[in-house]
Formats: sequence, structure tokens, C-alpha cells
Amino acid sequence: MTNISEAFIAETLMQLVVILASAKIMGLVFEKVGHPKVLGELVTGLIIGPSVLGFVDVHNEIILFIAELGVIVLLFEVGVETKVRELMNSGRSSILVALLGIFVPLLFGMLYILAFTGYGIIVAFFIGATLTATSVGLTISVLSEIKKTKSKEGKIILGAAVIDDVIGLLLLSVLADIVSTGQIIPLNIVKTFLMSAAFLGLLVLAGKVFEKRILSFVNKIRVERTFIVTAFVFALLMSYISLSIGLATIIGAFAAGLILERKEHMKLIHHRVHVLTQLFSPVFFVMAGAVVDVRSLLNIEILPLVIVLTMIAFSGKMISGLGAYRDKVSKTAVGLGMLPRGEVGLIFANFGLISNIVTQEVYSSLIAVIMITTFIAPPLLKRAMK
Amino acid sequence: MTNISEAFIAETLMQLVVILASAKIMGLVFEKVGHPKVLGELVTGLIIGPSVLGFVDVHNEIILFIAELGVIVLLFEVGVETKVRELMNSGRSSILVALLGIFVPLLFGMLYILAFTGYGIIVAFFIGATLTATSVGLTISVLSEIKKTKSKEGKIILGAAVIDDVIGLLLLSVLADIVSTGQIIPLNIVKTFLMSAAFLGLLVLAGKVFEKRILSFVNKIRVERTFIVTAFVFALLMSYISLSIGLATIIGAFAAGLILERKEHMKLIHHRVHVLTQLFSPVFFVMAGAVVDVRSLLNIEILPLVIVLTMIAFSGKMISGLGAYRDKVSKTAVGLGMLPRGEVGLIFANFGLISNIVTQEVYSSLIAVIMITTFIAPPLLKRAMK
Repeated sequence: MTNISEAFIAETLMQLVVILASAKIMGLVFEKVGHPKVLGELVTGLIIGPSVLGFVDVHNEIILFIAELGVIVLLFEVGVETKVRELMNSGRSSILVALLGIFVPLLFGMLYILAFTGYGIIVAFFIGATLTATSVGLTISVLSEIKKTKSKEGKIILGAAVIDDVIGLLLLSVLADIVSTGQIIPLNIVKTFLMSAAFLGLLVLAGKVFEKRILSFVNKIRVERTFIVTAFVFALLMSYISLSIGLATIIGAFAAGLILERKEHMKLIHHRVHVLTQLFSPVFFVMAGAVVDVRSLLNIEILPLVIVLTMIAFSGKMISGLGAYRDKVSKTAVGLGMLPRGEVGLIFANFGLISNIVTQEVYSSLIAVIMITTFIAPPLLKRAMK
Repeated sequence: MTNISEAFIAETLMQLVVILASAKIMGLVFEKVGHPKVLGELVTGLIIGPSVLGFVDVHNEIILFIAELGVIVLLFEVGVETKVRELMNSGRSSILVALLGIFVPLLFGMLYILAFTGYGIIVAFFIGATLTATSVGLTISVLSEIKKTKSKEGKIILGAAVIDDVIGLLLLSVLADIVSTGQIIPLNIVKTFLMSAAFLGLLVLAGKVFEKRILSFVNKIRVERTFIVTAFVFALLMSYISLSIGLATIIGAFAAGLILERKEHMKLIHHRVHVLTQLFSPVFFVMAGAVVDVRSLLNIEILPLVIVLTMIAFSGKMISGLGAYRDKVSKTAVGLGMLPRGEVGLIFANFGLISNIVTQEVYSSLIAVIMITTFIAPPLLKRAMK
């Protein structure tokens, strides 16, 4: 390999060693004291990231890609464990939870900004939109640690988070329209929505139709032992398609898992995919912690805005849990599952900053809100699910 | 994740899909017709690489790093499967094979260049040195396909290849001295040699001393299920150290495997590491094929030089097989195992070109020789081992 310098390989190897080793140690410590491992990984990121120790280079594209692979295999594994039928069963609750989780924080956020600050409608819409985000990866990681991904609550959250991501995409495309043209273009919104819905629906349907053939083909050419390669390629391909049409990679990875969920496949890939999840998903959560600038929290002037927005972010998602009123589940757990904004919130916030929609002050406040929801959700969710 | 563009993630995902999918298909085809899978992967690289289809970007650092990870996990897995005692048993044969495999091609290469071409001593030394390289990854991959890594031949080749790498490093440091100072600095050679030997010796010794404690610690904190993470981190760390002192990453990865070779560890990590090897080692071989410029072979003027150097490269390593005269093994198989120059030869050749030691013509000839040895070794080795 001659097109990459040895120094860069060495540096990246060291970064991986530091990230994985410290995540492992902190994960064990957090588990020991009853907190979710994933929270330990986030805290690890905070500590070894640029805002404290500076051990991690958040601009190393290789590490960032491995982090992305980590969340892809995590959602792929969850997809493999999830039955489409069961997901459909909790579909109505999921839709209601997702819609409440979008519109309550959006509305409350906008109302507060318009009524009590000097900012205009665009800033208000942006702040509200950022408060709607849900980081499904984080919640799934907590549920998976305590072996509750197959619980009724898990199913509702999973479905709602997927819908959330699609709607989040719509909100982002609305924002992009506002930034580039100064107005809202309904046609673009309809287009984005139809494409996303068509992607998920068609993909899972087509997958279900073809999977028997795929399976018999696999049996024919006797590649059971190496079926993991095929499955992995499939997950990456779906992630790629998902990203190409503007959705998050993890939606495609989850869909890929759903398609391969049959018993015969699970036997072949489940334990093997889990190896990948164990190795790479910590990189994702450490990096999610590392990109947060702790110093933004120390600005006393933004404190009032942070407190109010956190209350809206928290109550909005807790109210969304009530959307599962039909089911015998812990509404608190569902709400808490939707709470962490995580990397999705960061994408929103960064878009706002880069597009000059918001000031550095508002940006810092949003980062603080995202951090708080992301860090309080895992321990609360773990407790609520017990 | 905000510091890496979605477009780059998408592109890299697609690259991985193309590489893994085509490697898998070609691997199956090659296996079907009785050739080693790894040859199929090399050919895949040639075809989808820049010289033919151009589907693969050989400058994508993420893909190059994943390729490096692929060969790291491959050698780590082989290390885990190898017992130090057995390696020591074939130690004398390994040393003899390595020394013959270095000095025969070096001597013959130098003599030919000095006697029959107009090039001087430095070019002659460089060409000879390039002919000494051995790509252990390729040979190991072939042996592992036909389940012969634990054979006596496999052990001898493995030991010889490790020694080869250390001596190759010495030759490279000699070349670097010549380039920068115009002379050979014995002190630097001694320094490099001692450091490498100390690294390998101390590492394996220290590992053996501490591994019982490590194991009991692992049992104490009950992380058996996640021991793969610790093992993976350990392999990466050793690769890093190896690279830092100037050796190849794979030497460190192999040493890490040797240290963890105990039965208790094998049970915990072997099948899990194999998942990584299945997924990532094809990336390495595809990229090794992709970086080769096929057009350099089409230059008719270099043909005489290519033919002679190939004969020297071939006979030199076949003679090295005789170094195993004490053991009841196929000397042909041992020689063929040492034959492929692979990526190690490419590193040498590139060094020569960048340092202006050789002309583009000599460089192209060397690339052709490296290609030929790399492509003919796997099928011949597979046949010889049967």
C-alpha cells in the first residue's frame, strides 16, 4: 500500500487503540456502578476529546468513517433481530409517538422563541426543528445492553425513531429551502417525503419477495460460512442508497437487517455481526462525545436559554411517550427512549451555524441542550425499563 | 458526525461494496476452477483498479486503512493459531530459508545488473534488494484457504517470512543511508537490527510472562464475551509499536497473536477474529492488485530485463526452499511460499522511484517482476501443498 503514509497509519492505529481501550475501561466502570456502558463511552469521548485531553483527532476521516460503520452495524444487528410483523403491530403507536415527538418540541420551541426572545420566525423554526431530533443509535444501544430491544417499548421506539428520521429529513429540506431561496417550497417537501417512504417500503417489500431466492442461491453455492460477507455488503449497500437519497445511513442498515431477519439468516449472521458491533460501535459513541465542545457549556450567559430549551426538549419527548396509550407499556420509557438528540441534533445545529441561520450563542445553547438530553437519557431509560 | 462529508462517506461505502462484492464473486469463481480465492481477489483488484475499469480509488485513505486492518487481522489470526514452541522447532530451518531467500536473489540480481547492464552498484543493490521481498500475507492466505497454516511447511514459511521482513527492513535502512548520505552507515544497520530483534523477542517473552495474569484478570472482571475487544486492541497496539520502530504492522499483529495463542484465549477469540479476516482481508488483496499499473507490463522494451529478473526472483526463492533440508517437507512448497513479492516488493520499488535511485524503465520492470511472482505463486503453492 503506497498511497497512504506510514505515519498516518500509525497515528490512526494509535487513535483506535486509545478510543477502544478507554471506552472499554469506562464502559466497565459505568456498568459496575449501574449506568449504561454507552454513557461511559460518551463520557470517554468528552474526556479524551479536544475539549479536555485532546487525545482524539475529530478530523481524522478514517476514525469518523469507522464510527459511521459502528452505528451502521449496530442498526443492522437490531434490524436482524426485529421482525417486520412485530414492527407493524406497534406501527400505530410508533407513528403517534413520532408525530407527538416532532410537533410538541417544534411548537413549544417556536412559541417560546417568538414570544420571549428577539429572534424571528426562521430562527424559531430552526431551534424548534433541532429539538425534534432523536438519536436512535444511543437508545438502541442502551436497550441492547439490558437485552430489551425485543420488548414492546423497544419496538415502538424503533419504529418511531425511523419515522422521526424521515420527518427530520423533511424539516432539514425545508430549512435548506429557506436558506437558499428564502421561502418554503412545498414541492421539494413532497418529493423528499415520497422518496423516503418509497425507499423504505419498496426496499423491505422487495427484500421479502427476493430473500427466498437469495437464500436458496446461498445454499446452492454453499457459502453459508462466508454468508456474513454477503450480509455485510448488503448492509453497506443499503446504507449507501439510504444516504444517497438524503436519509441517514442507519435507516438503510436497519432496513437491510429487517430483510435478513429470517431464522435461517439469523443463525448465519447474528453472532458474527455482533463481533463488529462490539468492536466498532464504541468508536461511534466515543466520537459522538468527542465532537461536543464542553467549553460551550461554561458560558453563563446562555444558561437561561439552555434551561428553557432543555425543559421543552425533555417535556416534548416525554409527552410523545403518551402516544403509546394503546399499549401496555411504560410511557415514561418510550418518552425517555426518544429523548437523546445525539448526533442527529448535532447535524441540525451545525447546519444552522454553517448556514448563518443562528448566532454562535444560540448554537452553543443548542449544543448544550443536545448534550444534556443525550447524557441524561441512558441512565434514566435503563432505570425505567427495569 | 460533522467533520466528514456525507458525499465522502457515501463514496467510500460504495467503494467497499464494489470491492467486497466483486472480490467475493471472483473468489468463488477462482475457487470453482481450483485456484486460490486470494488470486481471484488480486485479479479483481487489477480489473476494477485504475489500470482497467477504474472503479476503485487507490487514493482513498479510508479504504487503504481498512486494507491495512485486513492484513493485520489476517496475521493476528495466524499468530493465534501458531504455537511459539512449534515455531521455535522449525526455527533453524526458517532462518536458513530466510537467509538463502535474501542472499541468493540479492547476489544474482546484483551480479546480473553489474555484468550485463550499464547501471552502477547502487542501482544493482536496489534491484537485488527488491527481489528479496516476501509477501507473507499472500502465502498465509493461500495456506489458510487449504487449511495448511499448521503444516510443517507453513511454520517454516511463517518463521522465514518474519525474519525476511526484519532483514528487508535492514536493507531498506541501508538504501535510505545510501540515498541521504551516499554511503553505508554500519551503526544504523546494527541499531535497526537490534531494535527489531529486541522488539520481537522481548514482546513475545513479556507476553508469555504476563499472559497468565492477564487471563486471570479477564476471568475476574468477567469480560469473556467482550474479550475480543481487548484482543483486537492488543493487536492494533502491537501493530502500532511495530510500525513505529520501522517494521511492518503485520509483524506486530503476528506477535500479538502468538502471545494470545493459549487454548483459553483461542476459544474466546478465534472465531470472532475470523469474522474480521473474512470481511477485511479481501480489501487488502484487492487493493494490492489495484495499485499495480497493468500498462507498465505492456512496454515491450523492458521485456528482456523483466524475463531475467523474474528468473532470478523465481530461482532465488526456490533455492531458499532447500534451506529446509533437515525437515521432511516439500522444499518446492517452501520455496513457492517465499515467492510472492506482493506489497513488500511494491514498497521497495516505490522507494527507489521516489528517491530517484532508478529510472521509470527499471521501476516498471520491477513492478512487472513483482506482479508475476505475486500472481503465479498462489496457484503453484496450492498445487504443491496437496
